[in-house]
Amino acid sequence: MPRISNKGVSMPESPIRKLVPFAEQAYKEGKTVYHLNIGQPDIKTPQVALDAVRVHSLDILAYTRSEGSEGYRIKIADYYAKNDIHVKHDDIIVTTGGSEALLFAFGTVMDVDDEVIIPEPFYANYNGFSTASGVKVVPVISKIEDNFALPPIEEFEKLITPKTKAILICNPGNPTGYLYSKEEIKKLARIVKKHDLFLIADEVYREFAYDGATHYSILQEEGLEDYAIIIDSVSKRYSMCGARIGCLVSKNKEVIKTALKFAQARLSPPTLAQIASEAALQTPQSYFDDVIIEYEERRNVLIEELNKIEGVQVGNPKGAFYCIAQLPIKNSDAFAQWLLESFHLNGETIMVAPAAGFYSTPGVGLNQIRIAYVLNVDSLRKAVHILKEALKVYKD
Amino acid sequence: MPRISNKGVSMPESPIRKLVPFAEQAYKEGKTVYHLNIGQPDIKTPQVALDAVRVHSLDILAYTRSEGSEGYRIKIADYYAKNDIHVKHDDIIVTTGGSEALLFAFGTVMDVDDEVIIPEPFYANYNGFSTASGVKVVPVISKIEDNFALPPIEEFEKLITPKTKAILICNPGNPTGYLYSKEEIKKLARIVKKHDLFLIADEVYREFAYDGATHYSILQEEGLEDYAIIIDSVSKRYSMCGARIGCLVSKNKEVIKTALKFAQARLSPPTLAQIASEAALQTPQSYFDDVIIEYEERRNVLIEELNKIEGVQVGNPKGAFYCIAQLPIKNSDAFAQWLLESFHLNGETIMVAPAAGFYSTPGVGLNQIRIAYVLNVDSLRKAVHILKEALKVYKD
Repeated sequence: MPRISNKGVSMPESPIRKLVPFAEQAYKEGKTVYHLNIGQPDIKTPQVALDAVRVHSLDILAYTRSEGSEGYRIKIADYYAKNDIHVKHDDIIVTTGGSEALLFAFGTVMDVDDEVIIPEPFYANYNGFSTASGVKVVPVISKIEDNFALPPIEEFEKLITPKTKAILICNPGNPTGYLYSKEEIKKLARIVKKHDLFLIADEVYREFAYDGATHYSILQEEGLEDYAIIIDSVSKRYSMCGARIGCLVSKNKEVIKTALKFAQARLSPPTLAQIASEAALQTPQSYFDDVIIEYEERRNVLIEELNKIEGVQVGNPKGAFYCIAQLPIKNSDAFAQWLLESFHLNGETIMVAPAAGFYSTPGVGLNQIRIAYVLNVDSLRKAVHILKEALKVYKD
Repeated sequence: MPRISNKGVSMPESPIRKLVPFAEQAYKEGKTVYHLNIGQPDIKTPQVALDAVRVHSLDILAYTRSEGSEGYRIKIADYYAKNDIHVKHDDIIVTTGGSEALLFAFGTVMDVDDEVIIPEPFYANYNGFSTASGVKVVPVISKIEDNFALPPIEEFEKLITPKTKAILICNPGNPTGYLYSKEEIKKLARIVKKHDLFLIADEVYREFAYDGATHYSILQEEGLEDYAIIIDSVSKRYSMCGARIGCLVSKNKEVIKTALKFAQARLSPPTLAQIASEAALQTPQSYFDDVIIEYEERRNVLIEELNKIEGVQVGNPKGAFYCIAQLPIKNSDAFAQWLLESFHLNGETIMVAPAAGFYSTPGVGLNQIRIAYVLNVDSLRKAVHILKEALKVYKD
């Protein structure tokens, strides 16, 4: 029998996937499961986007250009201008989700065995894309005690080798909710310029900045034009994760020219989803205002309630809709499974994402979980209460 | 300034892309351009598929499962059963076009520097996916004189090394239109079993078999269960290239388990397009009957007219909607550019795909072009007439 590749063997599994059979068993037993484990928001997609596909006038569902339709890219450039990010439509390649933008960025700037430095904990799928691309993730640890702020420059510089090609950040961060300050972006700018590295920023949560804070994009930082690559997506912004539309943005012409070759090989991003995504750009500001108010309230409730639990440590996230909580346990993989398999409070339990999958340093984050606050306030209160009661009885 | 990867530099450009500026210039000059260069059919998408997205009832455009929605996969398995291919829904992973299925297959079975043997000429983007995956294409030449039949077993065996992991075929073939016989599939089966290789078959043109011939799938061949991986897509079948929905099919559990990890990293295939694709499975047989009649007629006209031109050699394609034509010229890249830039017949010209991009052996196919017969019969006649007149005056 022919053999699977080593790459295939070492591809990481989703940190949540192994819990799915236990969740399914819990449903079968009639338990209610509060899902704190996923990044699929419960917020409605803007009506204007849903309606656009209802009234489509296509009679052939044809390819668009590999870089996305020109009309859509021009409107994306307008969207960026409103966010004080000044790019032309030619600086944008429409991709199949932020996922594909990241794959194109990796392929464009890194060869096999090259290295990318990523503050950890980081979005678990960065590990998958790295393995798929044959590149090595070099983590620089950000700490819960520091609320996951950017580690000092020296910590980055210690890790830079001739193989280092890029630094990748997620801002605001999944799974930390950390929003980088302007000063932190300037710090990163100094490092990448000094060492001739690319700075890749996953800014898919741009709008989700709380407490009046504003997001500072790497493309707002002057002098970064040749270094900066933005990864973006409509998934979270308009609660349309299933569209699978994102984009890669760079002022570096070589980056765009090269990423376009990867885009050409796969022909075209999805056409129907581009129609929905183009329409989504007309979403009124009031939609976002409401969403931000909703998420701020959820975050406030979540953090307040978590802080009431003895032995739980949690940062104060300023963005996205996640937080990392450190629990008084040894192994959150076992705990997450136990919650589904063996625990319930009046027939209800919770599903959480064990945090080890968000680290690449072995043994780190074992006592942490990621909580996505994509449930309404009432459900969140109930879910945290379940966590509190569960921790009282859990023994590892 | 940071540098692009070697991989990025060596990613091939689409063989047609460099002609696009010349086509745009031709439009500006008011010329009519007949497009024989693209695989975007002019056939209408089935109404049932277009309507399904018009009446969608989503209020959150959410992710589906990474392997595609279960309901859709069950219906895909039914579709295969009707085509005498017996698989379960668990043997299927829904992908973002056949392109992504191929990327997943490459990642699943090959490591960096591994080799895949492909009869050439082959679909140009196989080169792109190979470069992106860091694997090496080893071409085995099929000849226009043999109508692009499968080369003898010995030709394959000469090329097999310890790095060889798979043989990839496209059946029916793009760009040759060649339909492999049952006997040829059995020949391939013997090779892959003897040498423990995977057999990857791109069967996206399955329905497009002419002259009463039937397609024989690698998964109809008994004993190939552990070796066979099908790449499939709705793009051509239902003239919905812009959906970006395909699938990877294998009875080898390790292949599916591994490909699923690649699928998980990118979260989900496009949701709206899955709705359209699921509905497309209800397309009545009469749609395909009409399409096959239309393509057979086009093929007949095209081949007949091409054969009337002195010095032109062309096979007799039995499937898909392409043919390779060998012309009495030295360099089809220059010829294709000249057709757009310097030639017209009463204000009309043609755009063709130079065939060199469909070969990986340097210097082969330079006097060949690929013609896609995705135009109606009248336009095809005109287009071939333009080719004939152009060849009379062209000097290279």
